[in-house]
This record gives sequence, C-alpha cells and structure tokens, in this order.
Amino acid sequence: MSDERKVAKKGYFHCHMPTRVIFGPGRLSEIGDVCREFGKKVLLFSDPFLKKVGLTERVIGYLKKEGLGVTTYDTIKSNPLCTSVDEAAGILKEEKCDFVIALGGGSTIDTAKAAVVVASNGGKSWDYVWGSDHEPVSVTDVSYSIITIPTTSGTGSEVTPWIVISNPALKGQKAAFGDYRLVAKVSVVDPELMVSMPPALTASTGIDVLSHTLEAYVNVNATPLANMLALDAIKLAAENLPTAFGNGNNLEARAKMAWADVLAGWTISHAGTGLPHAMGMAAGGLYDIPHGVSIAPCLAKWMEFSLASSLNKFASVAEAMDNDVKNMPLRKKAEKSSELVKQLLKDVALDVTFSDLRVTENDIDYLVEVVYTRFGGDVESCPRKPTREEVAELYRQCL
Amino acid sequence: MSDERKVAKKGYFHCHMPTRVIFGPGRLSEIGDVCREFGKKVLLFSDPFLKKVGLTERVIGYLKKEGLGVTTYDTIKSNPLCTSVDEAAGILKEEKCDFVIALGGGSTIDTAKAAVVVASNGGKSWDYVWGSDHEPVSVTDVSYSIITIPTTSGTGSEVTPWIVISNPALKGQKAAFGDYRLVAKVSVVDPELMVSMPPALTASTGIDVLSHTLEAYVNVNATPLANMLALDAIKLAAENLPTAFGNGNNLEARAKMAWADVLAGWTISHAGTGLPHAMGMAAGGLYDIPHGVSIAPCLAKWMEFSLASSLNKFASVAEAMDNDVKNMPLRKKAEKSSELVKQLLKDVALDVTFSDLRVTENDIDYLVEVVYTRFGGDVESCPRKPTREEVAELYRQCL
Repeated sequence: MSDERKVAKKGYFHCHMPTRVIFGPGRLSEIGDVCREFGKKVLLFSDPFLKKVGLTERVIGYLKKEGLGVTTYDTIKSNPLCTSVDEAAGILKEEKCDFVIALGGGSTIDTAKAAVVVASNGGKSWDYVWGSDHEPVSVTDVSYSIITIPTTSGTGSEVTPWIVISNPALKGQKAAFGDYRLVAKVSVVDPELMVSMPPALTASTGIDVLSHTLEAYVNVNATPLANMLALDAIKLAAENLPTAFGNGNNLEARAKMAWADVLAGWTISHAGTGLPHAMGMAAGGLYDIPHGVSIAPCLAKWMEFSLASSLNKFASVAEAMDNDVKNMPLRKKAEKSSELVKQLLKDVALDVTFSDLRVTENDIDYLVEVVYTRFGGDVESCPRKPTREEVAELYRQCL
Repeated sequence: MSDERKVAKKGYFHCHMPTRVIFGPGRLSEIGDVCREFGKKVLLFSDPFLKKVGLTERVIGYLKKEGLGVTTYDTIKSNPLCTSVDEAAGILKEEKCDFVIALGGGSTIDTAKAAVVVASNGGKSWDYVWGSDHEPVSVTDVSYSIITIPTTSGTGSEVTPWIVISNPALKGQKAAFGDYRLVAKVSVVDPELMVSMPPALTASTGIDVLSHTLEAYVNVNATPLANMLALDAIKLAAENLPTAFGNGNNLEARAKMAWADVLAGWTISHAGTGLPHAMGMAAGGLYDIPHGVSIAPCLAKWMEFSLASSLNKFASVAEAMDNDVKNMPLRKKAEKSSELVKQLLKDVALDVTFSDLRVTENDIDYLVEVVYTRFGGDVESCPRKPTREEVAELYRQCL
C-alpha cells in the first residue's frame, strides 16, 4: 500500500475497498447468517461497557443460534495496550478459533486486528509497529478473517487496514501499523448501536471522522477516490454531528455519522492522515487522552497554517461544511473553512487547548520528537510540510 | 444482491466493491505481476481490432515474461453472442486454464464473465439469462478468478457483476444476468489504452457512462453510496466527454472518462439502471446497434417524463453537469438537466432518433413487450413508473 501511495503523484492511484458493508438500523440481527461462511468457532472481541449493557450477550445469542462456538475477550480499554493484544492473540490460538469478530469502537477493532497479526505470525504486537526503536517485523500471514461491528462512529477502523496501539512500558507511547489483508471481510454497521454513546464520546469520535477526511483530502497523497469520499463525509459530519451530539436518540443523525465514518475509513485507507493526527497521537500517548479529543486542539490552527498551500481544497471544505459560502471569492471561502471547524468544535464542546489536556510547554520537545520519529508519514504528506520549529510553534499556539 | 436492493427502501443498503483497481497511464505493464497470485495458465479474451493493433500481443508478452501459460480467445464482436460464450467456455475447460483476463470493451468482458459461469456450472450461457422464455438457471460455482483490462470507457463491466449477451436464434435478442462473485478481482485501468478509440466509439461508450449514472442516481434503489458515485461520474462525463471525443489523444480527458466509467460501474452494481437502458437494449437487440447509441434517442425525453417525480435529484444532475446553474430556482434547475443532456448528445454527434437506428412505428409493440418481459427491473426502479402505453408513447416521441 505504501508503494501505491508513493506513486500517487504520477497520476497513478489504486482503489481497495474489499469490505462488504451491511448498513442499516437493526441489521445486527444478521450477524449469525453473515458469519456462516467464515468457520465454526469465533473469538468475539468486546469491552466492559458493551458487556454491561448486554450488547455482547445479544451478539453471542445471534451467533449461537447459527450453531457457532463463541469465546469472548471483553476486557479492552480505550487506547488499547500491546500487552492486551498479546494476551488476546494467545487466546485466539489456544481456543483454535477460525475467525474473529470485533464488536466495539476503534480500540476493540484495533485489538482484534493486531491479535490476528500476532496469532498468525508469532512474536509480540509491539514488534510490528512502525517508527519505533526497532525495525518493524513484516506481516507475512493473515490466517483469520475479520468481521467488524462498530459501536462508535469515529476511527473508520471497521474498514481500514490500520491499527494504533500503546505501549505501557514506554510512557504509554502510541504507534501504528497495518497491512491491507487486515481489512475486514464484512462490516455490519447498525446505527442503533450508536444510540448509547454519551455526548462526549459522540463528539470525540465525530471529530475524528472530520479530521480523517480533512487531513486526507488536502494531503499530497489524496487520490480522485479519496477526494470524493472525503468531501461527502465532511458534509455529512458538519450537518449531523451537532445533532447526534445534542440528541443521541436521533437515529437519522446517527446513521449519517455512521456512514460518514465508513467513508472516512476508506478515505484514510487510500490517502492516510496528516499533521493533526501526528500531533494528537503524540500527546494522546503521553496523557492517555481519547483519540478524537487529542486532535481537537490543533485542527483549526493547522488549517490556518496550511491554507495558502491548497486554497482550492480548503475552499471546497468550506463549501461542503456550509453551502452558504458558495458564492464567496476563493481566498475568503478557504479562510472560512477553519472558522467553520472552530464553530463545529465549539458546538460539540470540544473547543479545548492542549493545556486543558495536561500538555505543558515542557512536553513540546518530546512531542515534536515523537511526531517526527513515529508519525513521519503524516508530516511528509502535509500540503505545507512543516519544519520541527513550526510543529513546536503549532503546539505552543494550541496550549 | 437483489435481496439487498429490495430492502433499500427501509434505510438499509450495502456496499460491495471488491475489485482492486490499479489506475494510471502505462500501468498495463504491471499485468504480469498482478496475475501471479491467480495461477499458472490464463485464457486471455480479446477482439480482432486489439489483435490487429498489437495490444493483445503486448499483453501476452507481459504474461509470458512472468512465466504464465497463455491461451487466447480473440474473435469477440460487439453485442456478443451466447454461442460465442459457449465456445469460449469449452476452451477454458479443455485448456485447463486457472483464471481469465478480459482485455477489451464491455463485449469482451461480458463474454469472459459468462464463459466463467458456463465453464464452472455447465449448460449453455442462454440458460442463465433473466426474463427469457425459461426459468433462469442459478449460478452455483464461480471457479475462475476474473481480471479485467478495459479498453473503452463505457460499460463499467470491469467492476460490475452484470453480463449482457445476445441470442442469434431469437432475433438477436439481448438479455442480462449476473452474480456478485463474477466481479473482477483486479482491474487494470490504463487510460493510454483508450487513446485508440475512434470518436464514434468514444461518444457511444461515454454516453453509456452518463446514462448509467443518471438512471441509477434518480432510481428508487439508489443508495447513499450510489448517489455519491453517480454525481461524481456525471460531473466528470459532462466535463470530459466532449474533449475526449474532439481529441482522442488528450490523456487527461481519457483518464477522467476511464475513472468516471469505474464509478459508473460501481453505481449500477448498487442501484441498477432504468428505463432508457431497457428501451435501448430492446432496440439494440433487434437491430444490432452499439449499446450507448441505442440509449441516446430516449435519454433526454425520459428525463422530461420523470422530472417532476424527483425534482431535487434532477436539479443536482444539472448542477453536476454545469456549475453555472447553481443559483437557479429548483424547478428551473431540474428542467435544465435534460437540456444539458441534449446539448451533450449534440456535442458528441449522438443527437439521433430511433428512426435513425432503423426502428419503425411497427416495431413499437414488440419493443414494449421486450422492455417489460426482459428488463422489468429497469421499469420497476424508475422514479416515475411508466405504463405500457407511456413506454410506447416515449418510443413514438423518439422516432
């Protein structure tokens, strides 16, 4: 996939969206039928909240009704740890499961994907991450099919090849890796499952959708496919996130955010992310901040920083977010994009600074180092490639 | 897939775009590498024109360089015959090929897909078609991977599950069938291959792209995915078809039409086609008319007929085709859509009538019967469902 991205500049691109998406309220009940072709025994990944509210049991019921054997791994927490992944991989092998289902948010889906890598290839999950202190081990085999059932609308992980995990032994550092064979075979996207998300989680995951698509759309790896997906998702997020945040029971807004998240996942699968993700993940690793929240402080400032390098694209972002700007002159319209993002952050109570998230001036040198060593690809792909000093200054402006 | 389409109205939809698309000028040279994972011996489908200009040989060279065994079936003609399919299926089995490559336009790709059905399941290809004088035989197995290399930008067949074939024993009647497992595993879309298309073929295939997306976008099975794909493709076709028609060497216009065709293929994979396709295919079966040409006479008239039933959608079509209409009132904007299509048809010398294509008043009863018996799904999905009398009247108005 990285090779494909390298040649994007020559007018080459590729499309790879193999996940069969089954979308609609109530479609969770089809999960048993969906799984029949993948084997007899499944490891179901889930989290303590979904267990508590009975959703895990409901899924187990649908699976058992089809005669499937089910083992669960349901202790996953936000910002999943490499140690948890390794534990799950052990269970996957010991229990001789045929395939996996990830029921949950990005943390659960990433844990499931990473466990498949470890169970298929051996070693430890941290061996595979990019930009760490060691050469990453290559993924050779992917021996288990992955089915995803997202319960948040944020990470896009239900359709992407990407994984982000944290290492508790290294100050909780986050790192990413991925392989195109880890893309889910099927994703059941049922907006009814998102209704239970509290407003704060709706906001942080929704801002993740917005930032995925914004960063990918303006970055230098954007392809015709990514451009189309991104603009549609930006429009959906701008129109529906405040509604879903204000009234979590609005199923139409939930459905539109869930669909925007699928589009955003496909977008970053083809064009990657950009500097806000790198800056946010560096901070999020240090202070265990929810992923979407960690990106919020720098999103609009980074847009202002990048604006002049891609006026047409930022103007299109503004138009996708607010049709009323359509007759403005180009520069004005482009400038409007960061204002609209600031307004949206305020509307969902995420107008936060890095200081609000405990980051201090003293952390900045360390964070800049993490941005460049672990998320260098996100810097390289920016429409205005920043220097180290400029990244430090962006952190400073967002304290 | 038909089940999925039936439930589209309940807010359910699905996405299934498994084809890995490798897009860009010159990428044909990657075909050998692409094929390695699919087996040792391939049946290459092609046509006499591509053989004459040396393209078939070029592809054989790339394949042999990778050590692949190659058998060719290169006698395919426009509006492919079920008898030709059956012959090719025999070769596929006798030669014990592992997979197939279709190098050509829709006729070649459809022949290859249909030959895979017959070689995998037995019988004759006409046994499998829908809406004929017999119950269609179901596709049980799909035993050969399909790789497509389109050389026209029209049918979308490089990424769809659909097949259209003609029966010489039945007045050349056309009929369709399909199965989602027939979707190509990989499609190499190289716009340099489209440069050799003469203007008339550029026009007819380009109008097919436009009609696929128009019909699918306004039809009752349209999904959020299909809507997004369709609008992007309509915009690309309106902007680039006259350029590609006027100057076939304009590689940028060729690339944009090739991409629009992929989008159009995905669109109809999810939302099907509508009445103009049914009317055109009925006429095209009777008089062996190129597919895109057969649709041209009725496209704008059908839009006028359907307009009021879907004002918002036709207004969006107009805006996609010409940004200058954006500030018009809704009804005016919607009305503009059919005018823009008429203008585009004129710009590519396809402002033809059914009479120009040899259809007469005396054929109309027969054609209406074919529309309803063979392409009933295309009638059912229309935003304004016509009566038989109205279809007859549409034919009459377009003579």
